[in-house]
Amino acid sequence: MSKLALLGGQKTIVRDANSPKKGGNPESFEDAFARYVDAKYALPVSSGQTALNAALAAAGVGPGDEVIVVSFTWLASVSCVLHNNAIPIFVDIDDETFTMDPKDVKRKITERTKVILPVDIYGHPAPVVELKQIAEKNNLVLVEDAAQATGAQINGEMVGSVAHITTFSFAGKPLSSSSGGVLTTNSQEFYERAALAGQHPSMLSQIVTTPELRKYVATGGYGDNHRPDGHALTLAYENLKTMDENTDARIENANFLTSELSKIPGITPPYVKPEVRHVYHMYTCLYDENHFGVPRDKFVAALNAEGVTTWTYIDGANYVFESDGTPCHVGPLHHRTIYQELDLYGKGCPFQCPHGMTPKYEIGSLPVTEQVTKQEFNFLQHDLTSPNDLDMMKRYMEAIHKVIDNINELRK
Amino acid sequence: MSKLALLGGQKTIVRDANSPKKGGNPESFEDAFARYVDAKYALPVSSGQTALNAALAAAGVGPGDEVIVVSFTWLASVSCVLHNNAIPIFVDIDDETFTMDPKDVKRKITERTKVILPVDIYGHPAPVVELKQIAEKNNLVLVEDAAQATGAQINGEMVGSVAHITTFSFAGKPLSSSSGGVLTTNSQEFYERAALAGQHPSMLSQIVTTPELRKYVATGGYGDNHRPDGHALTLAYENLKTMDENTDARIENANFLTSELSKIPGITPPYVKPEVRHVYHMYTCLYDENHFGVPRDKFVAALNAEGVTTWTYIDGANYVFESDGTPCHVGPLHHRTIYQELDLYGKGCPFQCPHGMTPKYEIGSLPVTEQVTKQEFNFLQHDLTSPNDLDMMKRYMEAIHKVIDNINELRK
Repeated sequence: MSKLALLGGQKTIVRDANSPKKGGNPESFEDAFARYVDAKYALPVSSGQTALNAALAAAGVGPGDEVIVVSFTWLASVSCVLHNNAIPIFVDIDDETFTMDPKDVKRKITERTKVILPVDIYGHPAPVVELKQIAEKNNLVLVEDAAQATGAQINGEMVGSVAHITTFSFAGKPLSSSSGGVLTTNSQEFYERAALAGQHPSMLSQIVTTPELRKYVATGGYGDNHRPDGHALTLAYENLKTMDENTDARIENANFLTSELSKIPGITPPYVKPEVRHVYHMYTCLYDENHFGVPRDKFVAALNAEGVTTWTYIDGANYVFESDGTPCHVGPLHHRTIYQELDLYGKGCPFQCPHGMTPKYEIGSLPVTEQVTKQEFNFLQHDLTSPNDLDMMKRYMEAIHKVIDNINELRK
Repeated sequence: MSKLALLGGQKTIVRDANSPKKGGNPESFEDAFARYVDAKYALPVSSGQTALNAALAAAGVGPGDEVIVVSFTWLASVSCVLHNNAIPIFVDIDDETFTMDPKDVKRKITERTKVILPVDIYGHPAPVVELKQIAEKNNLVLVEDAAQATGAQINGEMVGSVAHITTFSFAGKPLSSSSGGVLTTNSQEFYERAALAGQHPSMLSQIVTTPELRKYVATGGYGDNHRPDGHALTLAYENLKTMDENTDARIENANFLTSELSKIPGITPPYVKPEVRHVYHMYTCLYDENHFGVPRDKFVAALNAEGVTTWTYIDGANYVFESDGTPCHVGPLHHRTIYQELDLYGKGCPFQCPHGMTPKYEIGSLPVTEQVTKQEFNFLQHDLTSPNDLDMMKRYMEAIHKVIDNINELRK
């Protein structure tokens, strides 16, 4: 009888060691992305939202804590706060870049504030250098929502290396994939805690080395699932190689549109701070209804009819439609149902938490946000990216001029 | 000057209408899966965990509510309760199928109970017919965690059509894909509410037709992201076509192992209820340490050394490793840190919620669970599925006999 393999004998079954590796290669993507944004740690996750959920968990946000957010953004930038059972405190935006206004942040910090969460809306970085100073002075964590801004820069520094934690998204974004997102940080503690928010125990076993955190590995940390799809990571890894080239071409398209649109009274093309690389996930203009005497939505509909895709991202679209297919007007986030009802999870949770102060989100309390929401219209990343070139931009301008030249017809 | 397209004129830009459709085809998968399990609605999501998160949200589970769960399971079956800010109440399992014991359920229902959440552990359905009667008698919702049991049946009925809501997972499961999961129900209300828990507003616009729920569409419902990867759905759709064939071959392998292992004193092969189709995500045996005089883990290590992959799913593995690479012994879920600390999100949330009763999860309170955790060892789905055939099963048996014939060597 042969000796047991455990004791040095021959194995009963020897399998082919060369079987192909299944799934994606998260390690490679992680390493490549961390290097790209010049951050120490990168944690791939299932979406931009789960990146934010994990970021706030990493920052220790919990019941009754306050997180300073903007209302002029995609849903996830604020609902991540609710998913950590905390309370969003909305601040206004500046009227040029549509990003978080540091002056309003200073006014709204309380003893319950834990995190400042600006958004690089449309791909233009929020003023994170200034916000980081405010955060550190007040012992707060700065979490930057860069879902739309992969590849953006401030003062030559990559978005992803400046804030304490930065989150990115892939689906339809500058670094595109079929799904997924990633979070970057230079802090080992934030990295380990972000992983504990939603990674698999087998991965946590490798990531979490801090003794007082290792005891949570056996429950998969806090037990949610933020794990990315392997195929999506592989695709993101491939797309990372060509992203900057695509972005540069998009910036060239955007610069052309800006030079042309700035000649048109009543339309304000996007402002770009001189120290910034704006990656144009969307190209956003303001429309002056008083100048044209035609409602913005009618102007947008006329452009769409000409074959130029534009939409009103915050107010009209955000992809919400009435049952007859027409877009809804839903306003900036703080106008919407869950922020007006203050009772998301039942029994008033998390807004009326006994550990915090119940907020009141008044209509009209964020004047710039509310004004810009009524004026903005956007070209989409997809329509500014290859194969759409300068020739196509000229045709967009042709359509815009056609609509403006015929604006009288729309007044009827 | 030409007439505006909006007013009936010619479009400025006509794009190619034949551009390829991007991403997966969630509708097709949905329809195919709903038909397969004979349910009215199927909602694809990003994972088995998010299916459970959505199921409990659909059932209206909130702060202080109690959900009856088992401790002998994967993490997600219980952490989904915490992610809805509710309180898990653990019940014991039966000692034959290792699924939820209805007698213990009856003892633990209180006025705070909202949901009964059994698990089809290893692919053997929980007694959902009996549990559904208990649920309906007590005005509770039955949510079946069938992550490991796609294709399983009870009394000829498909798992997915019996409980009020059933959840499935794809990664490495009987219906395999690179990621994702799906939830099924026959209730329009549960379907709409489950979608509100984590789908995109553009999808919610189509799914949510109930007037009092439509007001939540503009926040993406409750604002989390449970959206599946499109490629993963396409792959799941393809794999659904061959799943039953693969499962039948795996059942044949399992039946062979059972006929052989039942001849070996000290090893109890899995019991299968006569009315059930067990799909063997794992093939689970009990090991009698007293009979062999060798610890279970040493026996498992000896099998692994012979080239037969087995593990102790609940206790040892669950993929948790010490920093030196050795598996941890972590016990059933109620033994683990977050259930012993009762302070997951800070300030005692959700266990010490003022809207509920703080639980105490005592070691030793679930005797069958705790006994089986010490005895079980498992063969994995992968190792019982093609190309592993009866010849390979014979080689597994050869290895098992070799270890048992040499068991004296392991006693030293």
